[in-house]
Amino acid sequence: MPSFADRLTSAVREKRSPLMVGLDPRLDQLPVSLRPPLEASAAERADAFCEFCRGVIDAVADFTPIVKPQVAFFEELGPAGMVALGAVIEEAHRAGLLVCVDGKRNDIGTTAQAYANGWLGEQSPWRGDALTVSPYLGDDSLEPFTKLAAERDAGVFVLVKTSNPGGALWQDLEAEGKTLYRRVGEYVETIAASTVGASGYGVAGAVVGATYPQQLAELRAAMPHTWFLIPGFGAQGGAAADVAAGFDAQGLGAVVNSSRGVIFAYEKNPQPDWRDAVREAARSACEQLRAATSAGQL
Amino acid sequence: MPSFADRLTSAVREKRSPLMVGLDPRLDQLPVSLRPPLEASAAERADAFCEFCRGVIDAVADFTPIVKPQVAFFEELGPAGMVALGAVIEEAHRAGLLVCVDGKRNDIGTTAQAYANGWLGEQSPWRGDALTVSPYLGDDSLEPFTKLAAERDAGVFVLVKTSNPGGALWQDLEAEGKTLYRRVGEYVETIAASTVGASGYGVAGAVVGATYPQQLAELRAAMPHTWFLIPGFGAQGGAAADVAAGFDAQGLGAVVNSSRGVIFAYEKNPQPDWRDAVREAARSACEQLRAATSAGQL
Repeated sequence: MPSFADRLTSAVREKRSPLMVGLDPRLDQLPVSLRPPLEASAAERADAFCEFCRGVIDAVADFTPIVKPQVAFFEELGPAGMVALGAVIEEAHRAGLLVCVDGKRNDIGTTAQAYANGWLGEQSPWRGDALTVSPYLGDDSLEPFTKLAAERDAGVFVLVKTSNPGGALWQDLEAEGKTLYRRVGEYVETIAASTVGASGYGVAGAVVGATYPQQLAELRAAMPHTWFLIPGFGAQGGAAADVAAGFDAQGLGAVVNSSRGVIFAYEKNPQPDWRDAVREAARSACEQLRAATSAGQL
Repeated sequence: MPSFADRLTSAVREKRSPLMVGLDPRLDQLPVSLRPPLEASAAERADAFCEFCRGVIDAVADFTPIVKPQVAFFEELGPAGMVALGAVIEEAHRAGLLVCVDGKRNDIGTTAQAYANGWLGEQSPWRGDALTVSPYLGDDSLEPFTKLAAERDAGVFVLVKTSNPGGALWQDLEAEGKTLYRRVGEYVETIAASTVGASGYGVAGAVVGATYPQQLAELRAAMPHTWFLIPGFGAQGGAAADVAAGFDAQGLGAVVNSSRGVIFAYEKNPQPDWRDAVREAARSACEQLRAATSAGQL
């Protein structure tokens, strides 16, 4: 199988879209027709999440190469939610989409290895094509993920510069003239550069927020072999123009995530079938990204 | 209900033990009688984990106030493993033990809130008394956890100085004369100090590795209202003397985790009933900690 970076490259080209759709189901924002009653059991709530995500996946599949289920919202329902997450990942594969599991996992040694075993690749129980991971525990905590990802043609997106205001508190600390996020970025780029495939990108990716366009440009220049996952577009305030600096000259190297702005689009644009609003929002987000970034030439 | 810090204080006093037992089931280290065949389904493997953890919980309950299930090993089995984790947490409560879920979770905004909702407190689906969280995403990512923990009488242990060699790579970076781990520690202490209960400890705790005794002493002095979760004792090389600096003068303020050294004790000490070896290892770890630390006076 081609590497994750190569498969992502092909999928972005095929759909002509760098849009990543975040699957962030929330009970109080489900379409009314799917919303379970207040007294519903965890299993009934989890079923509603499944049905919602299935509808979203079908509606966005033409406009996105990759979806990003947010584990937190499934975990919030307890064990039944995790069973639903497994079903949603299957559903996305069935629709021909890549799946980046947003778990921001990490731990040390054999525990990190267990997370990697669980999430990465089609041989794993969860069958993620990629997983987001957190770097606080250091380089030896990231290694089990990037090594297994390379073996299984999967990908890893490491948090580098996050989109929230508080992210700067520690990520922007400068030691010997270099910020923490820049150091983490350099480590990620080293791994990416040593695992480059046909696409020119490697096994390690980076999460870099849309809300910091200047740092996005700085990191793009410093990390030429690293796919970026750019959150913060849409509901969090990042505009299409803000993410332009995350792309390479070929319109590749970045996927831009939108969650709430796409999946809950029926709240602002009611339609007889809620999925039509979702489809329309995905199409519009995709077109905005094509118009404002080098992805327009794909 | 008393706060988590107060309940932990009472439980440590009652058991006269600062030992925390990590529930880290691994298929290839289960007692032979519980080991599922290679072709076993995920559900059968998950059942074996449940039975193993039930045996461990019964064996260690006299010697430990709190257990720490490691989510990674359950997640590694896929959805069936998460169902087993839910059952194991129930089992620990049934045995009268506190449960610190080791998930090292985090995310931003409402996503962090979803993790907090899911894991913290007896109202939550997973019913954790406490959860470990990772700080890379900044102060605003930790706030949903500490706020909800305060509301629900639950606890949060933030990674400050981890036990692995690579942890130093970024945690020890010095900016303006202060290390990153010290800065994270100061933030945690601020939250702890503002939420102090009868025990003198607050809602925020810190993970500080046994493998860095000097930093443990430094942080104990700097964080007088913060419970420490000290990993790295036993299999990771930390000795009982190394953790002594983590305790306060009353023998409180720290729980010392041992996972492999206790739960897989039958590997080095075979017994007709594997649980006897686990019981003996928990008793021995507890006695070592009493002998080498201020916990001896409890």
